[in-house]
Amino acid sequence: MTDYTPPEFKKPTGETEGKTITCKAAIAFEANQPLKVCDVEVAPPQEGEVRIKIAAAALCHTDAYTLSGQDPEGLFPCILGHEAAGVVESVGPGVTSVKPGDHVIPCYQANCGECEFCKHPRSNLCSAVRKWTGNGVMKTDEKTRFTYEGKPIYHFMGTSTFSQYTVVHEVAVAKIDEKAKLDSACLLGCGVSTGWGAVWNVVDVHEGATAAVFGIGAVGLACIEALKIKGAKQIIAVDINSNKFEFAKQWGATDCVNPNDYDKPIQEVIVEMNGGVDFSFECIGNVQVMRAALECCHKGWGESVVIGVAASGKEIATRPFQLVTGRVWRGSAFGMWKSRQQVPGLVDRMTSGELDVQKYITHQKAFADINDAFETLKRGDCLRCVLYFDEEDDARL
Amino acid sequence: MTDYTPPEFKKPTGETEGKTITCKAAIAFEANQPLKVCDVEVAPPQEGEVRIKIAAAALCHTDAYTLSGQDPEGLFPCILGHEAAGVVESVGPGVTSVKPGDHVIPCYQANCGECEFCKHPRSNLCSAVRKWTGNGVMKTDEKTRFTYEGKPIYHFMGTSTFSQYTVVHEVAVAKIDEKAKLDSACLLGCGVSTGWGAVWNVVDVHEGATAAVFGIGAVGLACIEALKIKGAKQIIAVDINSNKFEFAKQWGATDCVNPNDYDKPIQEVIVEMNGGVDFSFECIGNVQVMRAALECCHKGWGESVVIGVAASGKEIATRPFQLVTGRVWRGSAFGMWKSRQQVPGLVDRMTSGELDVQKYITHQKAFADINDAFETLKRGDCLRCVLYFDEEDDARL
Ligand SMILES: NC(=O)c1ccc[n+]([C@@H]2O[C@H](COP(=O)([O-])OP(=O)(O)OC[C@H]3O[C@@H](n4cnc5c(N)ncnc54)[C@H](O)[C@@H]3O)[C@@H](O)[C@H]2O)c1
Ligand SMILES: NC(=O)c1ccc[n+]([C@@H]2O[C@H](COP(=O)([O-])OP(=O)(O)OC[C@H]3O[C@@H](n4cnc5c(N)ncnc54)[C@H](O)[C@@H]3O)[C@@H](O)[C@H]2O)c1
Ligand SMILES: [Zn+2]
Ligand SMILES: [Zn+2]
Ligand SMILES: [Zn+2]
Ligand SMILES: [Zn+2]
Repeated sequence: MTDYTPPEFKKPTGETEGKTITCKAAIAFEANQPLKVCDVEVAPPQEGEVRIKIAAAALCHTDAYTLSGQDPEGLFPCILGHEAAGVVESVGPGVTSVKPGDHVIPCYQANCGECEFCKHPRSNLCSAVRKWTGNGVMKTDEKTRFTYEGKPIYHFMGTSTFSQYTVVHEVAVAKIDEKAKLDSACLLGCGVSTGWGAVWNVVDVHEGATAAVFGIGAVGLACIEALKIKGAKQIIAVDINSNKFEFAKQWGATDCVNPNDYDKPIQEVIVEMNGGVDFSFECIGNVQVMRAALECCHKGWGESVVIGVAASGKEIATRPFQLVTGRVWRGSAFGMWKSRQQVPGLVDRMTSGELDVQKYITHQKAFADINDAFETLKRGDCLRCVLYFDEEDDARL
Repeated sequence: MTDYTPPEFKKPTGETEGKTITCKAAIAFEANQPLKVCDVEVAPPQEGEVRIKIAAAALCHTDAYTLSGQDPEGLFPCILGHEAAGVVESVGPGVTSVKPGDHVIPCYQANCGECEFCKHPRSNLCSAVRKWTGNGVMKTDEKTRFTYEGKPIYHFMGTSTFSQYTVVHEVAVAKIDEKAKLDSACLLGCGVSTGWGAVWNVVDVHEGATAAVFGIGAVGLACIEALKIKGAKQIIAVDINSNKFEFAKQWGATDCVNPNDYDKPIQEVIVEMNGGVDFSFECIGNVQVMRAALECCHKGWGESVVIGVAASGKEIATRPFQLVTGRVWRGSAFGMWKSRQQVPGLVDRMTSGELDVQKYITHQKAFADINDAFETLKRGDCLRCVLYFDEEDDARL
């Protein structure tokens, strides 16, 4: 943890309601270029929209991936960011589920409660606003709420949390307990919830189960934590960076394996350890590792969950015999949590002390240092770096 | 149905107990050559073994696949066949679960009840004798019980039912009700049980579900039958041979689709029909179709089951996004039935009239015509061809 001390968060006052707000935001003008922290104009929320003042915004690899230009669906110029927490500044017409002053987490995965996905007991892929968030605009008028020098700036994942104020669809706003610390709650908007949910919602882990977790970033560690809570008796952490094993053990891994230490494929190494695991989780985004994660599962019943997001166009492959002999290949987005309905409960479990989110925050920085934060995120000692808007610090920009 | 009338089956008398039996068997001397019907010597059953007189033996594509030489694990000379029913002639020392005169189905998938697979609620891949059946021998002495002109002939899949008498491990013998007709019960040894089980055991099909079945052979039709019984509201039959659609409709398909009638991939055709199916089943063994079967599943929850056995070395592939957005890729062997424990129950449901197996038998022939039967099996109008041993007909051999 760096010695940066976050400023105190100032709640929105209500004075700005109905007005365009000018505030700091980090604009990605083009792929593979540093972000530019600028004064952006944020229009008031329209029908079914909520304007949020962000208290803490973490960086996730999906932001870095889109910024790199590898995401064919990435739109520029845009405002990235999707792992944050804040307070509602104002709401547009028709909004009933939140009001100014409410503490919230903007959710990249919406949850309208009405569509076929929301109604299905085992899916969280709400389709209510996907078509528009995928195009970087809001549903009401198919326009953006961000403007810079008179030109529209695209939204990203329906959240765009690298802006001090952002506008989000109501169906994507989870209202949380105001006792929750916003600077740890922000992590529940993506990575940590994703890992927990992959273990708790996607598969049915029994006490005494064996598991392998591939990739020891925040997502993999959240899997390890969730497995430990479920009573897994063996949790094998796999990473090519052995520095990660200290984290892994601290979080609950019983074994740590670096594939580079072996001549044979890692799936064979694991099958020789225990006959194969009951469950495996891929938390990297590498299609070769996804194959290994499936093939290290126990014949007859082992289940593998793909969590990592692979580069566009990449394919997973295996022999069908792997499935015919009983392995199951799954995947999940946002840990299958129905965001608006279930994230508040995760926040409560954090507030009660049952789940510790703080330990995933290895770095904190001023928002002005966002490009530095992206560099930090690439380092082996960084799990999550949280950014804070600092109205006084803005002077240096 | 051809006009061949099967002879009456003569139960074993007990006179042969402890003696080597000389009887007709079809030997596969080498890959890709016709079988030769010969007089083979069948040694008495050893410790933990059962000698069975076969009443009816059907052909399955796995027999044809091994005979073709494409199966790298195929051993020659051998006696093929794994879909049959018969009566116990004698048992070796220590055998307690069956006795001479019992009606039985030899099961290529053993079921010892003791190993980790047998004890697991969701696996049928018993490991008790696999190591030996995979090598074409019996466990007790690692030898074969078949001899031809003084040379050993390998067993196949632990069953070798293309012999009037065969020797099988006790753990692979399912004792069935003697009221059951052996010449339809034989189909429960592989294809029909496999299709039913894929629907009933591997996934959880709800009333009103939608499904697609790829490949309308006996296995695919058994899936359709099982889906109909589960109350699926839409059952899409897919085959490149439109002649199959008459069968499909008769069995319960609501829609029939021939991929050759479309320019776009069949998965897109199906997704456009209903948004994607809740469940799909691949009953062909083609890795491209396995991909289509996964990708035609509904985003969020669709599950695909691989049943077909692909040629050696072939791989399945898809974009991991297919899994991350909620589809599940599964497979199963022998429909996840625990053979000794569950096949007798299937036979009872057949005997009670609840399940009709007879309708899968499109052809019947004398055992002497086994090569002709393999040709028939390739034809579009053949689901299953059942062979009968005919002691009088043997004269012509
Ligand atoms: N499905 C979802 O909803 C969802 C949500 C959030 C994040 N993600 C994805 O999850 C993945 C993990 O996120 P994170 O924030 O924990 O990432 P991270 O970069 O912090 O962690 C990845 C880890 O994988 C290790 N690694 C890289 N290549 C490896 C290999 N070949 N073998 C073994 N280990 C290897 C790295 O050393 C690193 O420790 C990313 O792909 C991210 O995009 C998915
Ligand atoms: N997993 C198991 O335990 C198990 C058990 C028994 C059989 N099998 C396998 O199941 C498969 C089906 O067995 P069956 O006896 O029903 O076979 P079959 O040959 O009678 O039926 C296959 C059907 O698939 C159709 N077909 C072929 N290529 C196609 C394509 N590209 N698209 C659409 N349709 C196509 C054919 O026209 C035919 O109707 C085989 O691979 C067999 O080895 C597996
Ligand atoms: Zn993320
Ligand atoms: Zn919805
Ligand atoms: Zn078969
Ligand atoms: Zn067993």
